[in-house]
Amino acid sequence: MSLERTSDDARLLAPFEETRAQKRISVYDRRSIDGEAIIVETSGLDYNQFLRFITEVLIIPSTERFVLTTTDRTMLDFDKFQELEDGNTLHLMQTEHQELPAATQEKIVFTPHYDTLVRSGMYEYYASEGQMALPYALAELIDNSISATASSKGERSIELRLLFDDTLGKPAVVFVDNGSGMTSKQLNNWAVYRLSKFTREDGKFRSDHQGYTRPEDVSRSINSDISCFGVGGKQAIFYIGNSTRMITRPTGSPDVHELILSKEDFESKAMNNEDIYSGFIHNRKVGDSSHVQKESECFLHNLIAEETEKGSFTAVVITGIPPEHAQSLKNDFDKWTRELAHIYHYYIHGLNGNDLVHPLNSNINIEVSLQEKPPRCPRVVNLREVDNDMQTLYINSAADTFEFKACTPSGGAVDGVLRYHPFLYDRETYPQGPHTHPAPTEDELEDGESGAGSQADGRRHIFECFWNGRLIPYTTLSEFEWCKRPGKHSPVPLECYSRLSGVLFANDRFQVSTNKLTFIDLELQLQKKDTIFTRIVNGQEQRVQIKREFSQWLTGCHERLDKQVHFVGFKKTITRAEM
Amino acid sequence: MSLERTSDDARLLAPFEETRAQKRISVYDRRSIDGEAIIVETSGLDYNQFLRFITEVLIIPSTERFVLTTTDRTMLDFDKFQELEDGNTLHLMQTEHQELPAATQEKIVFTPHYDTLVRSGMYEYYASEGQMALPYALAELIDNSISATASSKGERSIELRLLFDDTLGKPAVVFVDNGSGMTSKQLNNWAVYRLSKFTREDGKFRSDHQGYTRPEDVSRSINSDISCFGVGGKQAIFYIGNSTRMITRPTGSPDVHELILSKEDFESKAMNNEDIYSGFIHNRKVGDSSHVQKESECFLHNLIAEETEKGSFTAVVITGIPPEHAQSLKNDFDKWTRELAHIYHYYIHGLNGNDLVHPLNSNINIEVSLQEKPPRCPRVVNLREVDNDMQTLYINSAADTFEFKACTPSGGAVDGVLRYHPFLYDRETYPQGPHTHPAPTEDELEDGESGAGSQADGRRHIFECFWNGRLIPYTTLSEFEWCKRPGKHSPVPLECYSRLSGVLFANDRFQVSTNKLTFIDLELQLQKKDTIFTRIVNGQEQRVQIKREFSQWLTGCHERLDKQVHFVGFKKTITRAEM
Ligand SMILES: Nc1ncnc2c1ncn2[C@@H]1O[C@H](COP(=O)(O)OP(=O)(O)OP(=O)(O)O)[C@@H](O)[C@H]1O
Ligand SMILES: Nc1ncnc2c1ncn2[C@@H]1O[C@H](COP(=O)(O)OP(=O)(O)OP(=O)(O)O)[C@@H](O)[C@H]1O
Ligand SMILES: [Mg+2]
Ligand SMILES: [Mg+2]
Repeated sequence: MSLERTSDDARLLAPFEETRAQKRISVYDRRSIDGEAIIVETSGLDYNQFLRFITEVLIIPSTERFVLTTTDRTMLDFDKFQELEDGNTLHLMQTEHQELPAATQEKIVFTPHYDTLVRSGMYEYYASEGQMALPYALAELIDNSISATASSKGERSIELRLLFDDTLGKPAVVFVDNGSGMTSKQLNNWAVYRLSKFTREDGKFRSDHQGYTRPEDVSRSINSDISCFGVGGKQAIFYIGNSTRMITRPTGSPDVHELILSKEDFESKAMNNEDIYSGFIHNRKVGDSSHVQKESECFLHNLIAEETEKGSFTAVVITGIPPEHAQSLKNDFDKWTRELAHIYHYYIHGLNGNDLVHPLNSNINIEVSLQEKPPRCPRVVNLREVDNDMQTLYINSAADTFEFKACTPSGGAVDGVLRYHPFLYDRETYPQGPHTHPAPTEDELEDGESGAGSQADGRRHIFECFWNGRLIPYTTLSEFEWCKRPGKHSPVPLECYSRLSGVLFANDRFQVSTNKLTFIDLELQLQKKDTIFTRIVNGQEQRVQIKREFSQWLTGCHERLDKQVHFVGFKKTITRAEM
Repeated sequence: MSLERTSDDARLLAPFEETRAQKRISVYDRRSIDGEAIIVETSGLDYNQFLRFITEVLIIPSTERFVLTTTDRTMLDFDKFQELEDGNTLHLMQTEHQELPAATQEKIVFTPHYDTLVRSGMYEYYASEGQMALPYALAELIDNSISATASSKGERSIELRLLFDDTLGKPAVVFVDNGSGMTSKQLNNWAVYRLSKFTREDGKFRSDHQGYTRPEDVSRSINSDISCFGVGGKQAIFYIGNSTRMITRPTGSPDVHELILSKEDFESKAMNNEDIYSGFIHNRKVGDSSHVQKESECFLHNLIAEETEKGSFTAVVITGIPPEHAQSLKNDFDKWTRELAHIYHYYIHGLNGNDLVHPLNSNINIEVSLQEKPPRCPRVVNLREVDNDMQTLYINSAADTFEFKACTPSGGAVDGVLRYHPFLYDRETYPQGPHTHPAPTEDELEDGESGAGSQADGRRHIFECFWNGRLIPYTTLSEFEWCKRPGKHSPVPLECYSRLSGVLFANDRFQVSTNKLTFIDLELQLQKKDTIFTRIVNGQEQRVQIKREFSQWLTGCHERLDKQVHFVGFKKTITRAEM
């Protein structure tokens, strides 16, 4: 349909044609204190025409000398005039170096650079020397899928597929979930950096979705409310690769919405002086992959074909994976899947975690698959099958537990568990395993060797910390006042304190950093005097002094569970009736 | 000047008047697979007029039923039509639930939320449990001033003024430097989040300033090149307060440029659906404070009056200081000024640091002042006078030094110094002082007590690390292979290794995180096999095996400098001739 004017009120344009480019220049007459300001639409004018126009309008006698400069005092000439952009401001003065008799206002635009999306992950987000960053980037997208499937009644399915078979296209990291999907407005919001759940508004047509409601209190805060700051997905995606295609079908809609963000796109828009933060959502019917043309994206046809068997879903397709990431995703497959199983331990195994004897599954399935070029076999791991993540090891080697709760005056609530890993006959049962925390230094290991067993003794931070049910990997906490290894007068040998592991489940009144790697205020809050700790037995709060309770429990553990006194680190002789 | 059309080519508008609001709606006819797309300018139309127009243009027979929905499948009605915004897309279909026979394109805008500027500092930047964040926020603005004064020949003056006298207005934190200032284009660029030195372009009229040139190699990399990612100033400002007024006069210009960014402004622009990232630079003559009206900003008149005595300068005026920050700036004055003196130690004292016996000053003056309501006296500290920052303590208690250099294949260069703090008669001289690093845990202290002195022994990380001459406070490094405390066969008592402090000066080939709190790859790079360490003596590289050199140096230190053998931690007997 061509451009035509069919009525007085409405104009009809060919799709996406822009109106004529404007180039409006503000000119401040600052020859004297009472000079005027005018805005001139200059598109189509050359410098001489512009000058003529100015002298006419401002009634400058032809004998009067004047200069036109930018606000940076650069003198205008024919070429520089051409380079002016819409919205620029000029000063009209008697001389180049004259001072401004009155102030001027200059309109500026300071839209964030696209590196805000593309590079935030690099320098800030995963900046942690010597730490694995990749699993935590992958986790951001799993976080989103856990949130998106929160209200699902049936199985909550989250797949992470590594498509590394180059006969099917370039390497891709794909996340697919059967969550609620996104409407086109929500997909638009997805792309808005730092639009947090607190500031989001899903559009005028969805007033039911507006505003944020704090999740209800649930045991151990496993509330699926782990989409938060409006940065995670974007930063993670551009850390993992350099381009993403979001494909999503919202609940109840026959349409699929797609949006591509890519570094290359941003660069070309910047080059061409186009709006950086504008793009197009592609709306289409289910299963329609006719828009996928590139051979390098061949795998998309399969992915899109699967849509017909699904209801609502979201697929995040990341490409432009740098070779070193592809390498470590392949080579360290076991390592990072274990770390993911650790992060989501209580989401995939439920409230009590992975008790290998009495397994109790949740309805969240997180499946990781790696597909390489045949004849290499695909690898598939359901994170629930991982049985060597640290929480699984702690849970299954614990012989007794001590549950407690901490409450802060401002509504912060932490469910806590201490676990006792006894000494059995000739060895500590404290689990050995790769640390997510910095490995102990040489000295620490040395100290450990002289203690009750390097693993059990070398660790000072006994609590792993979860936030809304999800591991915050870099924050670990040492003991609280009431369960501290005492200086003297210990009722049990000191090494018993090294047989403790612990876990804290904090609710969302505690703040985490945007990258979800550390708590901001957990330790601070918990150390405050007015934070109240109570022991929990069978789900019931005990109105008793927790320090004494703990001490009795620990003594009981030692007496009942440690099967041989271990005399390394010998401090005093204890007479034990049952031995 | 009123709106009038004075020529065919140019229109004259009153300043800042906008053209008539557009409301262009794309309509995709998706009743069938070959339907068209049109864009309709709908401003001024109501729903019925719009419908009439559509049926006319698309020639829809009056008997045919059709529906109009948003891309989220919300049916349009009279009210919802009014709520549409410029650029929205509609689907014209036979029925509400019909699938899309062909895809549609929907234009979206996803400008980052203003929390990008306002909140990045909060959650991400200074997120470090239990650490002082304020001095590092203040440091970001000093970084900028150090960069801005880099090419000054005379005194480089950087002032940090805490204006906490409420008779002069609301509390303000003000930074003033006599650096090169900013042109209005540079001031505009200042506000662009994540416009880094690598991507910056100072404007078409300043081609001399375009592109980034790596600083020349200088000794210890004290090159003033510490403005980097395009986020520091903004994030720090909105961490310190909630509003800033930038006041700057660039070299050689008679004009002063001012720009205000404030959280409140952002909020009101968001509320009114205005462009978030646009604003106005106020250009004025030197000393002109006639635009300052509010009594709460009374102090600005003094500040602006000072301009007449200056050349180029930049003043950053931060207001909206939360009470808890004001409190700790006042109460912890000594603590955070010491930390600033530590960060900029080698900038304020020069290459060799603060040698109290042979002081050698640089031309950088950083002065901190705190002004409270009289009769409270103002406090003024030149950071150069601080004599208890850790580097000053290390330098002045060192009895000998061992200099070296590390080079990585990719051009990374690190100048290093090890310092020996001998044991004298009855005590270790290893300096005691507040740590910038996490304080040693209880266990560490316990270990320390059983060693050669708690301070000297408790520390495992001996190197403080500087980047382009500026301290990166949270990265400390433990020993390298060649200077490691040996397991057995030590030529000197093991506690000698605890008498070492060290400092590393890395050049800009090493990456730091955006908040300049940690190195990303220093330790990794230095541990690589192909990193070459050489000893430096009198500025000359020694072609000798560094491990043996070090060992000899340490033995020498012990034999010459330790004035009494300290037998705690006794390992074997050493016969020393001179004793
Ligand atoms: N898999 C998904 N399914 C449905 N909606 C999603 C999905 N992934 C993201 N979204 C939507 O996009 C928004 C932005 O995601 P993103 O990860 O960038 O930030 P966030 O999750 O809100 O916050 P953060 O990850 O920083 O805590 C989410 O809040 C959610 O509304
Ligand atoms: N005091 C100043 N004098 C002159 N120019 C300045 C001053 N402060 C900031 N600028 C300019 O503004 C830019 C942006 O400053 P900002 O601190 O936000 O980011 P950056 O210094 O470029 O990078 P980062 O601080 O993240 O390393 C600087 O690069 C510099 O060009
Ligand atoms: Mg997220
Ligand atoms: Mg900076």
